Amino acid sequence: MTLQEMGLQAKHAALPLQKIDSKTKSAGLLAIADALRSHASRILEANQKDVEAFVQKNGKSAMVDRLTLTKERIEEMARGVEKVESLPDPIGEVTGMIKRPNGLVIGTKRVPLGVIGIIYEARPNVTVDAAALCLKTANACILRGGSEAILSNSVLVDVMTEALDAVGFPKGCLQLVRDTSRETARELMRLSPYLDVLIPRGSKGLIRSVVENATVPVIETGAGNCHVYVERTADFSMATDIFVNAKTSRPSVCNACESLLVDEAIAKELLPIIAEAVKPYQVEIRGCEKTCAILPEAVMASEEDYYTEYNDFIVSVKVVADIEEAIDHINEHGSRHSEAIITRDYAMANRFLEEIDAAAVYVNASTRFTDGNEFGYGAEIGISTQKLHARGPMGLTALTSTKHIIYGNGQIR
Amino acid sequence: MTLQEMGLQAKHAALPLQKIDSKTKSAGLLAIADALRSHASRILEANQKDVEAFVQKNGKSAMVDRLTLTKERIEEMARGVEKVESLPDPIGEVTGMIKRPNGLVIGTKRVPLGVIGIIYEARPNVTVDAAALCLKTANACILRGGSEAILSNSVLVDVMTEALDAVGFPKGCLQLVRDTSRETARELMRLSPYLDVLIPRGSKGLIRSVVENATVPVIETGAGNCHVYVERTADFSMATDIFVNAKTSRPSVCNACESLLVDEAIAKELLPIIAEAVKPYQVEIRGCEKTCAILPEAVMASEEDYYTEYNDFIVSVKVVADIEEAIDHINEHGSRHSEAIITRDYAMANRFLEEIDAAAVYVNASTRFTDGNEFGYGAEIGISTQKLHARGPMGLTALTSTKHIIYGNGQIR
Repeated sequence: MTLQEMGLQAKHAALPLQKIDSKTKSAGLLAIADALRSHASRILEANQKDVEAFVQKNGKSAMVDRLTLTKERIEEMARGVEKVESLPDPIGEVTGMIKRPNGLVIGTKRVPLGVIGIIYEARPNVTVDAAALCLKTANACILRGGSEAILSNSVLVDVMTEALDAVGFPKGCLQLVRDTSRETARELMRLSPYLDVLIPRGSKGLIRSVVENATVPVIETGAGNCHVYVERTADFSMATDIFVNAKTSRPSVCNACESLLVDEAIAKELLPIIAEAVKPYQVEIRGCEKTCAILPEAVMASEEDYYTEYNDFIVSVKVVADIEEAIDHINEHGSRHSEAIITRDYAMANRFLEEIDAAAVYVNASTRFTDGNEFGYGAEIGISTQKLHARGPMGLTALTSTKHIIYGNGQIR
Repeated sequence: MTLQEMGLQAKHAALPLQKIDSKTKSAGLLAIADALRSHASRILEANQKDVEAFVQKNGKSAMVDRLTLTKERIEEMARGVEKVESLPDPIGEVTGMIKRPNGLVIGTKRVPLGVIGIIYEARPNVTVDAAALCLKTANACILRGGSEAILSNSVLVDVMTEALDAVGFPKGCLQLVRDTSRETARELMRLSPYLDVLIPRGSKGLIRSVVENATVPVIETGAGNCHVYVERTADFSMATDIFVNAKTSRPSVCNACESLLVDEAIAKELLPIIAEAVKPYQVEIRGCEKTCAILPEAVMASEEDYYTEYNDFIVSVKVVADIEEAIDHINEHGSRHSEAIITRDYAMANRFLEEIDAAAVYVNASTRFTDGNEFGYGAEIGISTQKLHARGPMGLTALTSTKHIIYGNGQIR
């Protein structure tokens, strides 16, 4: 099937899908969870072939773990689908209704986006995750995973489609692009007549390519060059705990800290404490001149370092004169994802909250909390780093749009 | 100045602009209104040169009226700015705050988008309108109008900038691209590091070019292939009044009706009444076979006609079997802008509201009401026909984003 045909089929599935009631949507999601469990061996078999092919081609790398499924991971995926099923259905809610002087009654109703394209990389669990979130919000979806996981993804989509068919979901509401050439990715990005939105999930390179090439509206996700700024009045032990957590608890994720800023007034005292605290994690410290003068283990940071998302046990450190320099530095170098200040000063806290331009701005907490579950959304399709439509962790409502419904009795203008 | 330099200047203006309080923002807008009035002759002089150059090049056309300013039109622009000033300031509002089980308090705060680019065509009033809406929402803006209005736009931006400087607005918060070559438009569409959003206002061709080429997130506006569907139970007189209004009150605008659908059961009786009612407006009727059999004055419509936004005294007409055919036809041919059903049947009204995929769906009212002022927003930057971020008429809040502000006391994850 060509992408055009897939797009047309998805578009035709969108309206019947929207008309399915919440109860049937739940039945479909629960059927998916059951099917994942009962077809676990079929899924594992396909996944093993993907993993073998990957290792043969690339050798062993961190990617292998991301690609590999196990019985436990399939159980996790099934539970994830059940969790999405249990969330309230956002579709159909009328979020406001006004009456105009001419008698027109205008309501704003939450509706699906329509057809969502999702482009992602190695992890096969995204296939299930994205499908569940799209179906819960009555969106048809076209998934395009990476070539490394194509056999796993194909079986996952087959298993899910069989489950949905049995419950009476419209044909074409969930589709996988099985040709994983670069050309199909490109074509999907420009499938404007059929796709309402495109969401890339994955590496910086992938996201940049989507932004560069897409004609379909994109929700940009991902890059996180997050800072922890320790202001001079900070509690040292709190600052240390938060930095260690933000840097080391899971350095590969986007809400991990990449850069530490410390007020000059406390740098001499605080930096050695922090350096000691991260020693067990063998964190490489790349600092400014002042940092290097204080910490013998630090190496000189380049300007480039301050723009870098390491996703690793490396941190850039800069000693700043005051909050003004800290805010300027963050707004210049950050990726507008998550930024934290550690302080005991009321005015400093407020100034930081006000002036930092980012999806999530923290006072006295770890940047690691920027996450749909931690924010209470119950699920997450990604973390938006753009300012349109959705910003920060995206839950179910980020997959919806609105329409105006207008009740008249003959009004003309 | 290069576009890169303009972008950098706008980005640097964004934060100080956001920090300006509502009172000062109001002072700036009122200063603009005053300046427009007191520099009316300077503006008219420049505009006259634009008009002369345009007529010399293109002869007299409908465009000349759109391009021409008069003392009255300048007064209208000034009043428009005063109206924007009088609206509530949306920036800074915290629209929700929750407390998580771990004690984190998470608020959602309304913030400016940052830097907005606006690409538009002949009308110089858009220059003032767009500037006022952007400044009210504390967004820096880079305007890029058409070459026909370059002298008018230059003077308008000079006059506004002088007024803002006197009130202490940051340099670079309002800028005009004075080189109106195609290259600068292209470059603006790809000014990703500096622009947060791009809004095109104008012809289909302009909007398509922006969607095709932009790397900056775009809010698509504009195209309106709007339908009036007369269901068999409709009151004939209401149906006629609404159709005549939707088609003829201002055919050049996007919320005007372009296509009429009539249930077969009533077509023979209703179509002649409607044809009679639009006779004074000399509306050309392009119909399906059944329409042409009923109306001798109708000419045959091509399939292309049903996709066409005429913006003129022309209408396509189709006789449909029932509401199902009407809904399918509209979802296939419409531009998802504004759609109306005329009916007395409760179930038909609800089905139409539910199943039509458009920004505004009407029961028993004219499509002409899709407008920021008519919807009670007090102002309008355009009508979004996409599903992301904003759908339908966009008021001030469409020019805002949100950020999460998180109050902790040492939380780590």
